[in-house]
Amino acid sequence: MSLLVVGSIALDSVETTTARRDNVLGGSAVFFSYAASYFAPVRLVGVVGEDWPAEHTALLQSRDIDTSGLQVVPGEKTFRWRGKYLPNMNDRETLEVQLNVFERFDPVLSEDCRRSSILFLGNGSPTLQLKVLEQCVGATLRVADTMDLWISTQRDELNALLRRVDGLVLNDAEARLLTDDDNIVRAGHKVREMGPKFVVIKKGEHGALFFSEHETYVMPAFPTPDVVDPTGAGDSFAGGMMGYLAERGNFEPRTLKEALAYGTLVASFTVEDFSLDRLRNMERPDLERRMDEYRRMLSF
Amino acid sequence: MSLLVVGSIALDSVETTTARRDNVLGGSAVFFSYAASYFAPVRLVGVVGEDWPAEHTALLQSRDIDTSGLQVVPGEKTFRWRGKYLPNMNDRETLEVQLNVFERFDPVLSEDCRRSSILFLGNGSPTLQLKVLEQCVGATLRVADTMDLWISTQRDELNALLRRVDGLVLNDAEARLLTDDDNIVRAGHKVREMGPKFVVIKKGEHGALFFSEHETYVMPAFPTPDVVDPTGAGDSFAGGMMGYLAERGNFEPRTLKEALAYGTLVASFTVEDFSLDRLRNMERPDLERRMDEYRRMLSF
Repeated sequence: MSLLVVGSIALDSVETTTARRDNVLGGSAVFFSYAASYFAPVRLVGVVGEDWPAEHTALLQSRDIDTSGLQVVPGEKTFRWRGKYLPNMNDRETLEVQLNVFERFDPVLSEDCRRSSILFLGNGSPTLQLKVLEQCVGATLRVADTMDLWISTQRDELNALLRRVDGLVLNDAEARLLTDDDNIVRAGHKVREMGPKFVVIKKGEHGALFFSEHETYVMPAFPTPDVVDPTGAGDSFAGGMMGYLAERGNFEPRTLKEALAYGTLVASFTVEDFSLDRLRNMERPDLERRMDEYRRMLSF
Repeated sequence: MSLLVVGSIALDSVETTTARRDNVLGGSAVFFSYAASYFAPVRLVGVVGEDWPAEHTALLQSRDIDTSGLQVVPGEKTFRWRGKYLPNMNDRETLEVQLNVFERFDPVLSEDCRRSSILFLGNGSPTLQLKVLEQCVGATLRVADTMDLWISTQRDELNALLRRVDGLVLNDAEARLLTDDDNIVRAGHKVREMGPKFVVIKKGEHGALFFSEHETYVMPAFPTPDVVDPTGAGDSFAGGMMGYLAERGNFEPRTLKEALAYGTLVASFTVEDFSLDRLRNMERPDLERRMDEYRRMLSF
C-alpha cells in the first residue's frame, strides 16, 4: 500500500551529557519516512529553506523515498530545533525553536499524494493536519501524531481532528495533559473515546501502550545499552509501525501488534547514534535479527 | 522448597491524591510473605512492638505463613512509615519514618529457619542482612533487596553482601545510584558484576528488567487502570517471584522468567487497593486468569 507522511523537516542541534551535534538532519517527517522505507515506498511532503543541504534529499532518495513533495522555498530558512538531554536520556529541554519556513507551511498535495492509501500526519498544528486530511481523499487509514503545544493552544481543532482520524500516536505526558488523568491506562482509553479507533502512547525508554475497543497492551522498549541520542525515536517508531502496515496491507489487530513491535525496534536502533547515523548503517536483516531477540525476550 | 523471608514489618500511613489510610498493615516481609504464600509455604522472621494488633498475625497465619519467627517485644513500638504519593502514583515522598523496635532488630534464627532452601533478605541494613545470611547455612538460593539509604551509608557492607548473594532486587533509581550509570541496561550489568548471578531492576509502573550473564530482558507491568496504592508493590513482586521459585523447586532461566512474570502480576493486584486489601480478595485462579491475559498481551 502507498504511504504518505506530511510533517516537519528540521535541522537539529542536540546536546547530551557527553557529546553534541549541530544542524544535523532531523524532523518528524524525515525520521518517519526513513524508518518506514525499510518496509514500503513512502511519499514525503514537507518544506525547507534554501539553507537545506541537497545531500539530505539525496540520502532520502537513496532509500527510495519519493521527495517530489519536498518544497524548497528560496529566501527562507529551514525549521531549526535545539535541545539538550538530561543525564537520564529520557527527558529533554528544548533550548530553541525557529519555525522559519515551517510556520507558513500550507501544502497542496499532488494527485498521487491525494490517492495514498495510508496517511500519517506528523508534527504540525491540528489546523495544518486537518487541511492535509481533507485533501487526502483516498486514504483508508489515517493516523496522526500530536504535541503538548497543540493540546494547550488548539484544543478545538485537535478535537475536530480526533473525530476524523483512525489512530493517534502521542507520548505519555501528552496523553495525561489531553485527558487530565494521571493513570496512563485510563488516559489511553479516554483519548480513544475522543474519536480514534486506536491510540498508541509512547513512553520513551519504557516502551509503548496500545488501546483499542477490545485490546489494551504494552510493548516494552528493546533494552539497548547504547543510548546516544533519543531524538527522532518517537517518529521512527511511528514510521516503522506505519511502514509495516503499508507492507502488509491490512490493519487487523494482529498486524497492528506486529507493527508496534517493528516500530519499537526501529526506534531502538535510532537512539544508538545521532540523527539518522545508526539507521544509515542498519539493514532489514539487522532489524529481523533484533526482532528474533525481542520475541524470545517476551516469550516464557 | 522452603522459603524464608527476613525483613521489616510495619504499620503504614499512606496518602494518595484521593484517599488516606492510617496505621495499616505493611512492611517488606509482610507484603513479601503474603505474596509468596500463593505458591509455597513461607517462614517469616521479623519484629514488632506491643502495639501490634494480633489480628495481623492471624491474617498471615490464615495464609499458612509460619509466624513462629515473629518476635513481639513488650514495651516497644512497631516500625512506622508514613508517605504520600504524587499524582502520577509512581513517585512518593516519605513523610515520616519511626524505626522503633526495628532499629535494634538482631534476629537469631531457629533451626528450621536456618535450614530453609531459599532465603530472601528484605528491607534492612546490609549489616543485618549479612548476619542473617551467615546463619542461614542451608540456603541454595539467596536473594536480597536493598535501598538508597544503604547504598549511601553502608557501601562496604553492601559490597560484601553483593559478593555473597545469588540475586539482587532493587529499583531503577537505586541501580543508578549504586553504579553511577544513568543507562539502566548498563547499570543492571554493572550491579551483576559486583557479585550476584542475577539482578532484577524494578521500574514501578514500567515493569522490571532482568540481567544475568547470558540474558537481558524486560517484563512490562500489567496495565491496570485501578492504581489505588502502590505501597508494597515491589515487595509483593519479590514475594511472587521467590514464591514461584520455591513452588517449582528449580532456578533454571525459564523458571526465573516465569517467576518474574508471576511477581509482576501479584504486584499488579497489590496496587489495586490499600495495604493487603486487594490480595485478601485474590485467589490463585484470579492470578492464573491474569497470567493468561498477560501471555496473550506479550505474544504476537
